[in-house]
Amino acid sequence: MPVTIPLITLLTDFGDRDYFVASMKGVILNINPQAQIVDLSHHVTPHDVADAAYLLKSCYRYFPDGTIHVAVVDPGVGTTRRPLLVSSSRYCFLGPDNGILTHVCQEESGVEVRHIENRQYRLDSEGATFDGRDLFAPAAAWLTKGQPLGSFGRIVPNYERLPLAEPGWDKHVMAGEITYIDRFGNVISNLTSYHIREVRAVSKRSEPLIRVGGMTIDGLVRTYAEGSTDTPQALINSNGYVEVFLKEGRASDRLNLSRGARIELC
Amino acid sequence: MPVTIPLITLLTDFGDRDYFVASMKGVILNINPQAQIVDLSHHVTPHDVADAAYLLKSCYRYFPDGTIHVAVVDPGVGTTRRPLLVSSSRYCFLGPDNGILTHVCQEESGVEVRHIENRQYRLDSEGATFDGRDLFAPAAAWLTKGQPLGSFGRIVPNYERLPLAEPGWDKHVMAGEITYIDRFGNVISNLTSYHIREVRAVSKRSEPLIRVGGMTIDGLVRTYAEGSTDTPQALINSNGYVEVFLKEGRASDRLNLSRGARIELC
Amino acid sequence: MPVTIPLITLLTDFGDRDYFVASMKGVILNINPQAQIVDLSHHVTPHDVADAAYLLKSCYRYFPDGTIHVAVVDPGVGTTRRPLLVSSSRYCFLGPDNGILTHVCQEESGVEVRHIENRQYRLDSEGATFDGRDLFAPAAAWLTKGQPLGSFGRIVPNYERLPLAEPGWDKHVMAGEITYIDRFGNVISNLTSYHIREVRAVSKRSEPLIRVGGMTIDGLVRTYAEGSTDTPQALINSNGYVEVFLKEGRASDRLNLSRGARIELC
Repeated sequence: MPVTIPLITLLTDFGDRDYFVASMKGVILNINPQAQIVDLSHHVTPHDVADAAYLLKSCYRYFPDGTIHVAVVDPGVGTTRRPLLVSSSRYCFLGPDNGILTHVCQEESGVEVRHIENRQYRLDSEGATFDGRDLFAPAAAWLTKGQPLGSFGRIVPNYERLPLAEPGWDKHVMAGEITYIDRFGNVISNLTSYHIREVRAVSKRSEPLIRVGGMTIDGLVRTYAEGSTDTPQALINSNGYVEVFLKEGRASDRLNLSRGARIELC
Repeated sequence: MPVTIPLITLLTDFGDRDYFVASMKGVILNINPQAQIVDLSHHVTPHDVADAAYLLKSCYRYFPDGTIHVAVVDPGVGTTRRPLLVSSSRYCFLGPDNGILTHVCQEESGVEVRHIENRQYRLDSEGATFDGRDLFAPAAAWLTKGQPLGSFGRIVPNYERLPLAEPGWDKHVMAGEITYIDRFGNVISNLTSYHIREVRAVSKRSEPLIRVGGMTIDGLVRTYAEGSTDTPQALINSNGYVEVFLKEGRASDRLNLSRGARIELC
Repeated sequence: MPVTIPLITLLTDFGDRDYFVASMKGVILNINPQAQIVDLSHHVTPHDVADAAYLLKSCYRYFPDGTIHVAVVDPGVGTTRRPLLVSSSRYCFLGPDNGILTHVCQEESGVEVRHIENRQYRLDSEGATFDGRDLFAPAAAWLTKGQPLGSFGRIVPNYERLPLAEPGWDKHVMAGEITYIDRFGNVISNLTSYHIREVRAVSKRSEPLIRVGGMTIDGLVRTYAEGSTDTPQALINSNGYVEVFLKEGRASDRLNLSRGARIELC
């Protein structure tokens, strides 16, 4: 169980045009004017829980111990889906019980999952459509004020998990899938240098072949600058994943790839 | 008259691509490095004062007492339109005298409106096109340093107000209008549960009929999850207004609605 | 050499959709939880170093002395291009050696340019594609903790500079060029009131003619409100440059102008 610091990150699909994110920040600062708030992103594809889960996984661990991460992509808001408070040895995470916390629950140690039930930490409001403002923001703010985890609700044994596709051998190829497409059109897979070593150990090749979107890429480069403007190349990206990119272009468009597409090493 | 805290919110149509917002923040922090700055939104439709006024109304009151709200959508910048400092019992608001502060002046108590005339609080700059940076940002920063309201300028008796459409009976229907369309294409009206009760009291129906954009919606649901992907539904949203939405779609596009369109309860 | 304060600005082409910017902020706050971070912009056109350099030039000087400005538009990340730490009498600047710091090096006094070589200030990570997170963010954070400039690396005598087009006489006209197009489609040139005075001194006209994009504008107005919705007009903008605008429209589209286009005064 972490000692929290007054640092709260926000991850939503609310965009930056309306009053949604500002309302959450107002609520937080009204409870704790000392809170520091960092936007992870508010541009998750609307209602895309898997996208948000991946984004959170990709950056939460760079924050200092005690940071409170709030993730609200919540198509089920107002229904019986539970609001969760997950604590690990390093962080707290708040979000709806829809799989958005799958990765962090899997990667963190000392995980306890609580159902946020205490109505005291909830804002009174007429509608049932904005738990980001009415429930998650105040709960996060009260955490930074030192309210004990137990006061938010009981530990629950189970919670929603997204299906996590793990790469694996499919006959003679290591098969993975595309897990994220970034703003540059870079195509990120769930294959890592571990899988490259696995493949290398059984193939005769020093560099792997990467098959994706109907094309075969011969080996890895190390930097974007080594890429080609004509043909997508692959590299190990900053989070350790095999990523396919097109210099000065969008590999995702060129190869017509979206999340879930297959990628193979051999 | 509020005791201000060093918390400033910014609402503009400057977008996030250029140097406009960063310049305002630099100016503020140069005057008061302790200031905390929160973006309300910088994606107001360019020059759309009514849009900005609605956005401000929708979230300003979640912030702690003493917050200074700066709203700069200002097509008349550099002309004789006056820069205003509005104080209420809880907040300060700064913005041009073009109606952008209409809602907050109406909703707050203890409102005093001042014309910001003191040139001491103004940045010297060659052009006359950026009062956000040269006038409103420094005035807000000086407020957080404890400069008294009276030092900014005289109280003025009148100021620009946007026409505020109030719902009302039109024969047997309660007629309201669309006041905002959010990033999800949700269509927000000025009708509230008060108007629904009014209609219920005179009609025989337990649930109202909602007529908008050529269609009739039968009653309200409570959450987005109860909506349909085929047909727009209505609910009371998190700010207490009747809102028309389409699950996983854009009600505004489906019904071809924009701000000012008529919506009826019966 | 500046005494730094724990204020860091970030300028990148990373956008706001992915985990890139948040990762940088996490790294900074993990090293110095007291750091205050301001976004200059993350919407630089991908890989457009000149755009970023102009944006930085346009707002850095509004920030308090001691601010640390981090600018990462870095198509050469992972190659031999050097990471730089530039200090002036007022600020520190960090960025790749690709010209992004051209303007600030030219405008600031007491400039020293260092090659960031100390691996101690670098985050360990597998990939070579994200120096924003792995090198520039931690270096900036360590600067705010008081690490001396000399500990980051040696002073280097030369560094990449973008070609800076200076306006000049071309026969009887003062010829400048378009340096930036903002979110409103306003077209900003490198001509200033100095050049207008030069032209006025030799021409018979009290107001200059401005020739750009095949049209001639007769004289300057002072505010956007004086513009016309039919015909682009020109004014001196808030940074002192001649700017061409179209009221309620996009001058850049109307005149089909982009960066580098010629503009003349006579």
